[in-house]
Order: sequence, then C-alpha cells, then structure tokens
Amino acid sequence: MTIFKKIIDGDIPCHRLYEDAHVLAFLDVNPISRGHTLVIPKEEAATLDQLSDEASAAIGRVLPRIARAVLAASGAKAYNVLQNNGPSAHQAVFHVHFHVIPKHADGTGLGVGWQPRALSDADAAELTQAITAALG
Amino acid sequence: MTIFKKIIDGDIPCHRLYEDAHVLAFLDVNPISRGHTLVIPKEEAATLDQLSDEASAAIGRVLPRIARAVLAASGAKAYNVLQNNGPSAHQAVFHVHFHVIPKHADGTGLGVGWQPRALSDADAAELTQAITAALG
Repeated sequence: MTIFKKIIDGDIPCHRLYEDAHVLAFLDVNPISRGHTLVIPKEEAATLDQLSDEASAAIGRVLPRIARAVLAASGAKAYNVLQNNGPSAHQAVFHVHFHVIPKHADGTGLGVGWQPRALSDADAAELTQAITAALG
Repeated sequence: MTIFKKIIDGDIPCHRLYEDAHVLAFLDVNPISRGHTLVIPKEEAATLDQLSDEASAAIGRVLPRIARAVLAASGAKAYNVLQNNGPSAHQAVFHVHFHVIPKHADGTGLGVGWQPRALSDADAAELTQAITAALG
C-alpha cells in the first residue's frame, strides 16, 4: 500500500486543501517551491495509463480551480503541472499524482530539461500510424 | 492567434493522433523524445487556470488512453505528462497544452530538476489556510 493510499484512508495525516468523491489535494511535504501541491485520484492506480477515464476526468475538472487557488495563495504568476510515470521518469510514489508547482520570481520551482530535435517526415508517418492504430 | 488555434482550425497541418469535440492530440514537431505528443483543448485559453472545468475534464478523460497508445507505439515504459503555464515556467505557445513525453531507455525525454526542502509547520498552516480560503 502506498503512502498516498494511507493519506486517502486517513491513516496518515496531510495538509488537506481539497477533496471530493474522486479527488484529494494536499500540500507536498517536500516542496520544490512554496505552494507545491499534489492532486491525486482516490482510485488506486500506479500510473496514469492505468487510471480509469472517469477518475482522470475528475482530476482534470478540478485542476484549473486548484491552480487558481495555489496562484492566489502563493503569489506566483507561473507554474508547471507535472505527472510522472515510472521510476526512470522521476516517479517515487506509485499512486498517480499531479504536481502543481509554482514558479517563483526567485527561480524556485520545476527545472525543465529540454533537448528538442526536429521530427522527420518518415518518423512522423510511422508514429502517426502506430499511435492512431493503438487508439483504435 | 496562436499556432495551436491555427492547427485546430485546420489552417496549419499537424500529425493528428486523436480528436473529439473538445480535444485534439498531435505529434510535437520538435520532440524531446520519440513519441512526444501534445494534447490540447479546442477551447482557447492561454493557461490552465483560465480553462473551463469542462474542457479540462475532457482532456483528463482522454489522457490515460492517449498515454497507453503513445507507450504502445513508442515502446517506452515510462513517461512524463507536463503542462507549463507562463514564460518563466517554460511555456512558449500561449494555448493550453499537455505534453506526453516518453522516457526512453537511452535517456531521451524530460529532464526533471528537483530541489526539495522540508515544509515547515508554520508555512504549512499558512498555505493550507490561504489555499482552502481561495478554493472557497
């Protein structure tokens, strides 16, 4: 059982910010910037691809509202929403969680490493075919 | 008008992967890893906090399905979902977009910079009060 399931069940306390039938939001106790908030489904799923459409929609529905509140309370003007899946993608707790991370004027917040390459026509065609086929 | 609005309107082509009444998904033409996909609302909003609950829920609903297809097509086992808001938070196109970024075994994918600090009791209390008050 993950620590987030224990928080949902009330067996471990949290700094609760928002709760509805499907979603819980609380402060990250190891924030990378002031106001760093976690938004999680009550449904148990290790990664987003394993989460039900309904639980994921419920999170989507409240993210704008939670983002507005985090901005208002923290004073930040910018922020990142990050959701990690798999150990190599920086996931540490294996219950789906969306980070809402204010980016403050002092630079605290998410560091984004970005090394783009141009998409080739051949790879675009291959990927488009493969992804649309997988979508069914 | 943003480039994403032009893509939605069909004035600029894209490698289209998924479309419904509210959402469009297509390949990022400057991918940071193979399979890097963008998921956007058809509703125009610069940042997530400005997006309607309904449009954000519609994106949430399809993210698990799109993630599964991107994993299947790219062969990745891990991935990040990232949504940036504001120039200082690495946003470059001012129409809401969720990146689905495979993390491949060769290390290509999102670089995550993470410098956590412990949350103090005093700051936790102050933030919890302020965010819950802002949530209404």
